[in-house]
Amino acid sequence: VEPARQRDLRTSNHAGVLGAVADSPEPVSRARLAARTGLTRTTVSALVEPLLSAGLLAETGPAPRAGAGRPAVGLRLSGERVAALGAEVGVDYLAACVLDLTGAVRCREVVLGDNRADSPEATLARSAALAARLLDRSRAQGLEVVGGTWAVPGLVDAARGRVLLAPNLGWSGVDAVDLLTASPHLVGLPLDADNEATLAAVAELGHPPRGLARGNLLRVSGEVGIGAGVVLEGRLVRGEHGWSGELGHVTIDPAGPRCRCGATGCLEVYAGQEALLRAAGRTAPATTTLGEGGSLAALVDAAEAGDPATLAALARAGTALGLALAAAVNLLDVDAVVLGGIYAPLQRWIRPGVEAELATRVLRARLRPVAVTVSTTGPDAAVLGAAARVLQGVLARPARLLAPAGW
Amino acid sequence: VEPARQRDLRTSNHAGVLGAVADSPEPVSRARLAARTGLTRTTVSALVEPLLSAGLLAETGPAPRAGAGRPAVGLRLSGERVAALGAEVGVDYLAACVLDLTGAVRCREVVLGDNRADSPEATLARSAALAARLLDRSRAQGLEVVGGTWAVPGLVDAARGRVLLAPNLGWSGVDAVDLLTASPHLVGLPLDADNEATLAAVAELGHPPRGLARGNLLRVSGEVGIGAGVVLEGRLVRGEHGWSGELGHVTIDPAGPRCRCGATGCLEVYAGQEALLRAAGRTAPATTTLGEGGSLAALVDAAEAGDPATLAALARAGTALGLALAAAVNLLDVDAVVLGGIYAPLQRWIRPGVEAELATRVLRARLRPVAVTVSTTGPDAAVLGAAARVLQGVLARPARLLAPAGW
Repeated sequence: VEPARQRDLRTSNHAGVLGAVADSPEPVSRARLAARTGLTRTTVSALVEPLLSAGLLAETGPAPRAGAGRPAVGLRLSGERVAALGAEVGVDYLAACVLDLTGAVRCREVVLGDNRADSPEATLARSAALAARLLDRSRAQGLEVVGGTWAVPGLVDAARGRVLLAPNLGWSGVDAVDLLTASPHLVGLPLDADNEATLAAVAELGHPPRGLARGNLLRVSGEVGIGAGVVLEGRLVRGEHGWSGELGHVTIDPAGPRCRCGATGCLEVYAGQEALLRAAGRTAPATTTLGEGGSLAALVDAAEAGDPATLAALARAGTALGLALAAAVNLLDVDAVVLGGIYAPLQRWIRPGVEAELATRVLRARLRPVAVTVSTTGPDAAVLGAAARVLQGVLARPARLLAPAGW
Repeated sequence: VEPARQRDLRTSNHAGVLGAVADSPEPVSRARLAARTGLTRTTVSALVEPLLSAGLLAETGPAPRAGAGRPAVGLRLSGERVAALGAEVGVDYLAACVLDLTGAVRCREVVLGDNRADSPEATLARSAALAARLLDRSRAQGLEVVGGTWAVPGLVDAARGRVLLAPNLGWSGVDAVDLLTASPHLVGLPLDADNEATLAAVAELGHPPRGLARGNLLRVSGEVGIGAGVVLEGRLVRGEHGWSGELGHVTIDPAGPRCRCGATGCLEVYAGQEALLRAAGRTAPATTTLGEGGSLAALVDAAEAGDPATLAALARAGTALGLALAAAVNLLDVDAVVLGGIYAPLQRWIRPGVEAELATRVLRARLRPVAVTVSTTGPDAAVLGAAARVLQGVLARPARLLAPAGW
């Protein structure tokens, strides 16, 4: 028992030191780390050494120091070696990115194309090939990608890496992680999968997560489908099985049109990307996507030109989104709603309806207004969040990246 | 620093031993407690002593023992001394109860009458007088009530004991705990206040909370207003300010009738107690209440007799409740919905609509059905939960009830 305990203690002390560096917006000296962690200066130095060797931490030149004495060397997270892959299978695009441990984007790529036309196997093979290109580019930059997370628009069994149900992709029961792991491109890389709206909310917190660490918000992910990620007291509220946040299937009108999920009058049939394009009189071609050309840009142009059908469709979508969000805020009690995905470029026309419904229909709005903001993470939110989650795993459990020497 | 740390450690060790006894459905020996807590037998005995003296634990006769050796004395929570008060200000009743530390109800009382007719001050004075009667009866049973929690149907600032907004009572900005504490009946008793639906969900977990400790559910509290308490992984999801679960203000139809909250078409105007009575052609007299006589019983009678207006009103309420609950389960991902309050006696007519909407409208219902059950805590759920929460505070922080000797 004793050796295991010692190992646990060392592991959590490494994580403690690494986390204290990550929490600091500026480089931090060993002496300050000792003060912050409650460990002795000697212990801190011993713990820092393997973190430096493993490329998790880096030293900066002597930092300016207010008091007397020799200037101290600062420690910061290193962007030189450890990196993580985030990937996404959207309905009409594939995306991937690599972040280094500081959270900087080192490479990214989006490939447009309707994934409903292909089998899950073929789509995942193309996604794996895209990821492999980014792994090559990362290696060329001297980075070592230590893991990857796949974002999927649906209900995911995260423990098994299985996509249980993704109505907008037409997937059910797809062993995504098994299929990806079997790809020759990704041999040996630890992978997992999760819901895209959940991962997009992780991105909203940033990496390393500092500013919003105590915050609360609901982040809407508007795509062909509509999902939400909820953060309370800085923590994701994932639901019992990780299936929370299905905002797109909140009923707006039981007598409304049929949704791809089988129910009627879901939010998605009023405010999803394809519903918007259809209602604005623009049938959705196979390559519509997130503001990178395609019909969404045309929709923005039409709205700016004052096209009545487009404006009516956007107003109706804003009201429907506001109704669903009012239900969500009444149930969840968050202070802020963040509009992401297609709602970011469309915010000028969507937001008034959202704000009006929240102000009228949320009981707590009488006490504390609900702030409506627009996501600044851009269309990459899900892949950024996916990679950030891998990195947060590294910060929490750095042990497996450390050399075993001395144990 | 050292003495404080030692104190913290002793405090948490007392709580650890007390919690280990509470978690066990049967009396547990000191030896077994040592094994479960990882403390030595000597330490456990030293920690148990003040818990026995303070009347938190009791010894049972030598328990039957499987192995060899002297039979061990069992320890269990004591129902002899420590007790807690739960009280509720409903729209049309006042209630209170006292639970001993084992969770047994030692006395309870409900007083019918519309509280909207009175000022908050007068209503709280009557509530304090009711509580004082129960404190007297508890003292006569040898119990010492160590604290009380008030349940209120509205948004509460629990830290300040302030009812911020309770539309159905017509209260806003009422310093309930200050007013109660000033009552001569309640001098010196630590008090707090919280939302009634939240506290009713605490009751659903039972005290001490064992069976559902890892469970998840949404418990609906149907009264004049409609609230919900959400439990995920055995923990209450209270929202950022404790204002979550406002199910009654989820919009069913934006073009619907006006709600007392100011919005239109809220669930409450379709499925709240008064809406039901009105729709069934029974205007709500001032004394309607929870199945204890009054019009609710008449409503049940009319439904049983097959009265068409009553059956139509109940069917419409069931569908509306199902729509709101489908939104909640899509957003929160719980496995079970528990119908409480007026929906328990009305379940035969309410449940079919609820189940139909959940089956159709909840995305995850395709993977895992949502169980609809009926609360067995009865109309007392909020007061039971209020008292249980005080007791759970005792289990978590027993130190202030222990004699200071030896410190």
